Amino acid sequence: MQHKSKISTVSRVALRIAAFAALYSSAVAFAQSAPLAPREVPAKTIPVPNTVSPELQQIIAQPLRTGWSTPPTTPEGWTHLAESTRATASPNVEAMRARLKVKVEPGTLGGVKIYTVTPEKVLPENRNRMLLQVHGGCYVLNPAEAALPEAMLIAAIGGYRVIAVDYRMPPEAYFPGALDDVMAVYRAVIAKTDPKRVGLIGTSAGGALVLEMGLRAKQLGLPLPGAIASGTPMSDSTKTGDTFYTNAMLDSVLVSTEGFCDAAAAFYANGHDLKDPLISPIYGDMSGFPPTILTSGTRDLLLSNTVRVHRKLRNLGIDSFLQVYEGQSHAQYGRDERIPENREAFTEIGMFMNGHLKK
Amino acid sequence: MQHKSKISTVSRVALRIAAFAALYSSAVAFAQSAPLAPREVPAKTIPVPNTVSPELQQIIAQPLRTGWSTPPTTPEGWTHLAESTRATASPNVEAMRARLKVKVEPGTLGGVKIYTVTPEKVLPENRNRMLLQVHGGCYVLNPAEAALPEAMLIAAIGGYRVIAVDYRMPPEAYFPGALDDVMAVYRAVIAKTDPKRVGLIGTSAGGALVLEMGLRAKQLGLPLPGAIASGTPMSDSTKTGDTFYTNAMLDSVLVSTEGFCDAAAAFYANGHDLKDPLISPIYGDMSGFPPTILTSGTRDLLLSNTVRVHRKLRNLGIDSFLQVYEGQSHAQYGRDERIPENREAFTEIGMFMNGHLKK
Repeated sequence: MQHKSKISTVSRVALRIAAFAALYSSAVAFAQSAPLAPREVPAKTIPVPNTVSPELQQIIAQPLRTGWSTPPTTPEGWTHLAESTRATASPNVEAMRARLKVKVEPGTLGGVKIYTVTPEKVLPENRNRMLLQVHGGCYVLNPAEAALPEAMLIAAIGGYRVIAVDYRMPPEAYFPGALDDVMAVYRAVIAKTDPKRVGLIGTSAGGALVLEMGLRAKQLGLPLPGAIASGTPMSDSTKTGDTFYTNAMLDSVLVSTEGFCDAAAAFYANGHDLKDPLISPIYGDMSGFPPTILTSGTRDLLLSNTVRVHRKLRNLGIDSFLQVYEGQSHAQYGRDERIPENREAFTEIGMFMNGHLKK
Repeated sequence: MQHKSKISTVSRVALRIAAFAALYSSAVAFAQSAPLAPREVPAKTIPVPNTVSPELQQIIAQPLRTGWSTPPTTPEGWTHLAESTRATASPNVEAMRARLKVKVEPGTLGGVKIYTVTPEKVLPENRNRMLLQVHGGCYVLNPAEAALPEAMLIAAIGGYRVIAVDYRMPPEAYFPGALDDVMAVYRAVIAKTDPKRVGLIGTSAGGALVLEMGLRAKQLGLPLPGAIASGTPMSDSTKTGDTFYTNAMLDSVLVSTEGFCDAAAAFYANGHDLKDPLISPIYGDMSGFPPTILTSGTRDLLLSNTVRVHRKLRNLGIDSFLQVYEGQSHAQYGRDERIPENREAFTEIGMFMNGHLKK
């Protein structure tokens, strides 16, 4: 009954938007004569906001990410960066695992390296459900255990069993290697679990990959999952989106389109068109997508690429929920459960999944 | 049935968030030793985004609002500004009225000046419903017919009957004159219409006033309305909120906290504490609020004050939906239905009301 009423609401959204599109299609077009002048914004000193928790204030006050403007220029350089950041992350990941009291077991599924992440307590309504988590890192970073924080957070806070995919990355495998790997795991998961009981979750490149998975599943005629959580997705890798510019030098994680993330995406694409919807999913046909929750922050370089996906889904009549966190830069919500706002974000994601996945 | 399942979802939200708050209350606090360094952002030239409609691109390309940095300094100056902007708006309002085919009738209700706005076609499910619209203008601007655009937009696009309140403004009446007036109209409306069939809608100062109405209704023991649409609310008039700084000189409407809106709010407050929840409703207790939709834009000076309300409501377990539009400055969505994104925004608002108001 609840599920049916949801579908009816969704249809109503699509019908209503279509109706108004028709109603106004005869509206007079605006004159296109004025030149599109850019906005000149002077230099600014921006205080740490006092409208967030003291814990988050400490994060916001951190300087721009070290080395943001000097991305690697060789395959060996990327491998070295991925390995060094993994080594740095490793003890933090283990400390977080212990705090969250989740069990992490490495394995393979569909021929792909995975981790099975199990919380101390699987919520009763999640007993037959499974989340598939796709890590971020601009398609190039966060191999092995560095992939785990988001999986551990949603396992513990949402009470879900989670499979975290340690997909191949360049130079081992270029586009579409990452997507092929997550699809192989998805196929293996839905062979045993009703897809309507399966949720996808990912952030940044992972946020793009979970959207690309929806597009790819449609291409392959596979059933779609029951819900998607796409966090600050790299939905457009063509440097397109207003906050790439408005939040440049403000976002302390990605900093600018001149930083490592765009360079990494190009390294992954390996000459392939960056506008391919399987690299920049904003350009794909998302009709038929399941309910989708989107997460971003007001300082996020990818805020535009998050709200653009939200609007695209809504205009297709899809149930989609947007949450935006005060003062947060790109993907900061997925790093540490000791920040109260991050617990909020994963609580929302867990509840959204809970409200939409089949029991 | 649908209504009951909604209530149960809402309760679940509150319970879940409370449970996780308890789970993590023993988390080790972060060290508070690091100084909270501000972010130094260099001057930037920001192009008009090509990720919005051509019509919206023209709006975004417009220069900063004329006179933004020289607000009036005398009561007579404010009266003159309100009157001159009303006179400028008047023919545009009439042209929009004609395009939208709505009927506008002036009158009084509860002793307060109002307009009744009736669309060509009231949707069947809205026959017993009524929206009460509270205009923006920093508590000082948009008297008389200048108050009407938002009321006309939601009447035509949502298919609702709307009462637009032409509340008193300073120097005729200072705080809490505007709030007293909208409450008088609300009392008169709910004397004849089940409050669960009444929705409140407002933008900017109006977005704050509809939240203040909820707080004031609780103080007075009046029933709350069935739903609220709060657009880019002046939820915090104390210059507090990250995007007051990050979007300064980027938002072409409000431009900066040094502009006319903060000066106008101080003129309205007339020496009263700006942190009073009836002026800055973010500081109020919103528990028990009805479902609330919030609207903002990525360049909005009040994006933070919008998402802060969204998070506050969600943490109270209240059904609240956030929509953020690419590239839009403060309240631009409420100005002209020929911008496709503006039709989207009011379609969402109309559907949200439709999904939550009693039939």
